[in-house]
Amino acid sequence: MTAQKSGRITMPLKILSTGAAVPAKCVTSSELDRRFNKPDGYVQRRSGIEHRFHITDDVSQAQLAVMALTDALQRQQIAPESIDLLISAAAIGTQALPYTAAHILKISGLPQHIASFDINNSCIGFMTALEMAACLLNQGVYRRIAIVAADLASRGLNWDDEESALIFGDGAACAIVEKGDGSSGILSFLLETYPEGLNLCEIRAGGTRRNLRIGMEDSDFLFDMKGKQLFRLASTLIESFAERLLQQAGLSMPQVDCVLMHQASHLAIKHICKQLHIRPDQYVDIYRYRGNQVAASLPSVMHEAWTTGRVHVGKPLMLFGTAAGLTLGGMVLLP
Amino acid sequence: MTAQKSGRITMPLKILSTGAAVPAKCVTSSELDRRFNKPDGYVQRRSGIEHRFHITDDVSQAQLAVMALTDALQRQQIAPESIDLLISAAAIGTQALPYTAAHILKISGLPQHIASFDINNSCIGFMTALEMAACLLNQGVYRRIAIVAADLASRGLNWDDEESALIFGDGAACAIVEKGDGSSGILSFLLETYPEGLNLCEIRAGGTRRNLRIGMEDSDFLFDMKGKQLFRLASTLIESFAERLLQQAGLSMPQVDCVLMHQASHLAIKHICKQLHIRPDQYVDIYRYRGNQVAASLPSVMHEAWTTGRVHVGKPLMLFGTAAGLTLGGMVLLP
Repeated sequence: MTAQKSGRITMPLKILSTGAAVPAKCVTSSELDRRFNKPDGYVQRRSGIEHRFHITDDVSQAQLAVMALTDALQRQQIAPESIDLLISAAAIGTQALPYTAAHILKISGLPQHIASFDINNSCIGFMTALEMAACLLNQGVYRRIAIVAADLASRGLNWDDEESALIFGDGAACAIVEKGDGSSGILSFLLETYPEGLNLCEIRAGGTRRNLRIGMEDSDFLFDMKGKQLFRLASTLIESFAERLLQQAGLSMPQVDCVLMHQASHLAIKHICKQLHIRPDQYVDIYRYRGNQVAASLPSVMHEAWTTGRVHVGKPLMLFGTAAGLTLGGMVLLP
Repeated sequence: MTAQKSGRITMPLKILSTGAAVPAKCVTSSELDRRFNKPDGYVQRRSGIEHRFHITDDVSQAQLAVMALTDALQRQQIAPESIDLLISAAAIGTQALPYTAAHILKISGLPQHIASFDINNSCIGFMTALEMAACLLNQGVYRRIAIVAADLASRGLNWDDEESALIFGDGAACAIVEKGDGSSGILSFLLETYPEGLNLCEIRAGGTRRNLRIGMEDSDFLFDMKGKQLFRLASTLIESFAERLLQQAGLSMPQVDCVLMHQASHLAIKHICKQLHIRPDQYVDIYRYRGNQVAASLPSVMHEAWTTGRVHVGKPLMLFGTAAGLTLGGMVLLP
């Protein structure tokens, strides 16, 4: 399939390299069975996860981010000096002020005085950052951009709430992009917010809403997820959303070579595949060994696809995700 | 001065309207003198502020943001339905998850299902968002974008620390932009990070660094500013930075019609003007009646300039700011 047959490239973009990192500590579901006095196999059945990784207290979000960034640089022997912008696309930042990218830049091997900022679109921030990067590259503002998403969900888990505590894992992933020669790029991009779902997945502390002044409780620091309601709302939206995304790209789902989804949960992945008629050979699944890595999921699954021969030049791939907001995002790329 | 004489527009951008809002509660410096048992005039001399505005507990960041957004829409009778992207550029968000723009969108009069995300570049996020918006508009991704920065510094003030507690005020401001006809736009944009200054202005709580899991203290929720060190570092950088920014625009400082600075402090404004040879008639100063409004300062001063006849078609204006990071940002615009 050529670029011509598979739709028009609206913005040139070349993914030069990808990288990923997980913390050293692997947490198996059988370990969690024992920890919470559950029958053997309970946590794996409930979460769909065999193991996930949780960071130890001595490692920072920026350190994990730099591991992913370094991985991406080294895999394609990219000179750190060639990067002129660092974007952090984490959903949950390092601290209220300053922004996360400055923390990452400080301990990275990148030139210390380049541009940096954060883009936050909760779990699909990486996709939005990819679109922003393409715009910046095509307008000639920067020449080579590193996008890193590192999320440490384990620091906000509510172990009294199985639904959320069992599904999250920590991780980081990175993509290094430039404009390229125009043979690869973005066919379509769609981003929509459904704020009626704003409180269905949240951590209330961390900013102006719950703090010393206003008052705060321990629960304000932990994931508060209403998974079923979130799922119900998302399922009323995704078919029409995907249809419009693909229509913009001039494609239908069977023509998509590879689908990279936000790894929200095993049930979410299953239902999205069913609703959107995505065949098992079309999508890349790392959920069983990572869990939901918040904004690090999408670039991690992209890294998996890029490094396991799942991506083919000239064959369109689709990024797709539902995120806290509720926010829907999709992108069709020609690699 | 025509567009040709004042440098080349690298990206068309039209600022359709601006808006601003402050909370109802005005806090005078004499009131603070009494509150902290200081001699009359102490706080005003120390802070350079006559009054600033602090929000009451019953008003949210999103509500203040929507006041600024509504102001911008109404001033130029812009139909809310014509906005297809909402960007929040606050330095300190509403909560750890989800992002702030979703909170603003929910209670705004904008169409509920448009695209939204946050850009965080601490105090200069509005400038970065303006550059991003210009890229998106010129690439045809969106047609009309609202950028809102609302910051409530008062919720993180450490009243035991005069240096920071006396200078901050709350506020929100908005710009609504589209591509325009190419007669107005961006001449140059420069963004640099100096992470050696990372800890010189920070609020450590709010994310993965200080929390229930890792541990946290009350002080982690409050501004921690080392103003003198921050100022020393910034003053070694800004001359060369401004020179490069202006060079890119093909201009020298005397040719700049109007300078819109981040309103960091009265001393910072004074020193920057001295170092960069900015004449009093060139810059717009709202600090005395607002204080440092964090990321809301830049769009608030832009709104002041736009609504008081300080901006002239075809005459270049400069946006300039130093921000927690330490991050330097500058933009030369032809309005």
